[in-house]
Amino acid sequence: MNARNSLFLLFAILLSVTVHADEPPQKYAIVIHGGAGKSPSSEEWKRGRENVLNVALETGVKLLRSEKSSLDTVEAVVRILEDSPYFNAGKGAVFNAAGAHELDSTMMDGRDRSTGAVGGVSTVKNPVSLARRVMTDTRHVLLVTSGAEAFADGYADDSMIERVPNSYFSTDHQKQGLERVQKQQRQAEADSMGTVGCVALDVHGNLAAATSTGGLTNKKYGRIGDSPIAGAGTFADNKTCGVSCTGIGEDFIRNAVAYDVSARMAYRNDSLDTAVRDILNGKEQTVRGGIIAISHTGEIVMRFNTEGMARAAADSTGRREVHVSE
Amino acid sequence: MNARNSLFLLFAILLSVTVHADEPPQKYAIVIHGGAGKSPSSEEWKRGRENVLNVALETGVKLLRSEKSSLDTVEAVVRILEDSPYFNAGKGAVFNAAGAHELDSTMMDGRDRSTGAVGGVSTVKNPVSLARRVMTDTRHVLLVTSGAEAFADGYADDSMIERVPNSYFSTDHQKQGLERVQKQQRQAEADSMGTVGCVALDVHGNLAAATSTGGLTNKKYGRIGDSPIAGAGTFADNKTCGVSCTGIGEDFIRNAVAYDVSARMAYRNDSLDTAVRDILNGKEQTVRGGIIAISHTGEIVMRFNTEGMARAAADSTGRREVHVSE
Repeated sequence: MNARNSLFLLFAILLSVTVHADEPPQKYAIVIHGGAGKSPSSEEWKRGRENVLNVALETGVKLLRSEKSSLDTVEAVVRILEDSPYFNAGKGAVFNAAGAHELDSTMMDGRDRSTGAVGGVSTVKNPVSLARRVMTDTRHVLLVTSGAEAFADGYADDSMIERVPNSYFSTDHQKQGLERVQKQQRQAEADSMGTVGCVALDVHGNLAAATSTGGLTNKKYGRIGDSPIAGAGTFADNKTCGVSCTGIGEDFIRNAVAYDVSARMAYRNDSLDTAVRDILNGKEQTVRGGIIAISHTGEIVMRFNTEGMARAAADSTGRREVHVSE
Repeated sequence: MNARNSLFLLFAILLSVTVHADEPPQKYAIVIHGGAGKSPSSEEWKRGRENVLNVALETGVKLLRSEKSSLDTVEAVVRILEDSPYFNAGKGAVFNAAGAHELDSTMMDGRDRSTGAVGGVSTVKNPVSLARRVMTDTRHVLLVTSGAEAFADGYADDSMIERVPNSYFSTDHQKQGLERVQKQQRQAEADSMGTVGCVALDVHGNLAAATSTGGLTNKKYGRIGDSPIAGAGTFADNKTCGVSCTGIGEDFIRNAVAYDVSARMAYRNDSLDTAVRDILNGKEQTVRGGIIAISHTGEIVMRFNTEGMARAAADSTGRREVHVSE
């Protein structure tokens, strides 16, 4: 090897090292909410929620860093929140007017807008996983109540579709909530606090979103909110953004809020933050609650017009934050 | 009276006459669909549908000309279509996989986007009227299955909320449809043919829209399509348009189609016709079916990408048309 060739080799090695060092880590982003509304007043609840959000965020980041899909990530994260009694989804769901629990959940795949949802299920431990089965295994997008239960019966051997008695979802906290609401004969403002959702952008550039909830305390049997409705409470499209909402579900349905975030980006080039902010500050339509979203470029937005929103976010630039109230 | 005053009076009278003669008749518009899909092959079905569409259109025009609200109009029109065995809504609804009928309906008010819907109801003769009660009498927008039935129980004295046995909805035509689909073990293409909907603009400038359906033949118990979901199958906003959709409900949910028509008008100034055409010709998202709509200025659009769509339209300029197929 002559001097010139040696120099060239050295240069090539240096260039390779430099390129490698400069290469950003593969881009990913995750954002989680645990419901908008009144902030929890007790220290125990604040700590409880904070701990679960930390575990959920860590799990999500780990999956995304190991190149898992955004779909697997949002499902795993929402399952953790569903299993926690500190959120109004799965274990810890609110009581309806009949003193029972009915759960709603949706999942959406940003690659092709495929989506699945279940509404009013009562024995499925993790509704988000049943929503995913509706998305992948049926030509439907929304199955409700006993029909959704019958669909779940087909997954007796699927460890992700565990069945539980309805009483599994009960907690003293939510029982007291029902008694309080029934005594006051009016809906408490903090109703929707505790719906959970997650949006993720994976290293493959795919967005996914999922939402899960027990709905409103003292809700009428058979009431479906925005959480199981793609376009209302959940939306994902790789060309624009992934979105999960929480709040007064009726506001989110009549204004197709989750889809509206995407439409504002697609049709008038709003930034994700502008789209979300304008919807929550709406002069013409009232939308009460919070919205989390990630754009196709990895921008994270978490906004709410209620007193507080439990939320967490992380991305490949090193951002990492958890908030349980304001 | 001197000459000058006489002249002034004459001028005033002439002006008044002229203004009155030039004043356009109070503007109204109505559009109706009876489902997109394959066109009916028998002459009896063509005539049957044509007759009902004519009656429905006449009724709607009469109500609008007598200054009734668009809400009253779309309700009255959809009730006529629900009562006819020639459409897949109310009497004549398709059979589900369990051999029974589950009906979905939504109504939406363009003044303030208030909306109500019922999904999977089985004993309410006219689901569109129950949807209206959800809109006006509850803080919810969507009640399903036994919850919606329990809600209907509260209207025992309301002649608009008549109850019937589930077998009332059965027809030989749809029974044969179920047998055909079950034998073929696959969904017939003509599934959605027969969903009904109506959009009206009243002389007060208010838009309203309503949709009603029996869903898909052989559908899984508990499957909810786009018809009871505001934003998916039905939308109305006085600032943009009123919309009712028919077709593969899953396509309309995942793409928030009814809201998307309004969003394209609001955010990038598409005309109503351009918005509807681009959605049905979508290069990226597939939406299979038909859309009827009226803009806030009274423009009527009826488009479909299926073989045919039963439809009718009329307005204050004298337009009046009824089509049962292509």
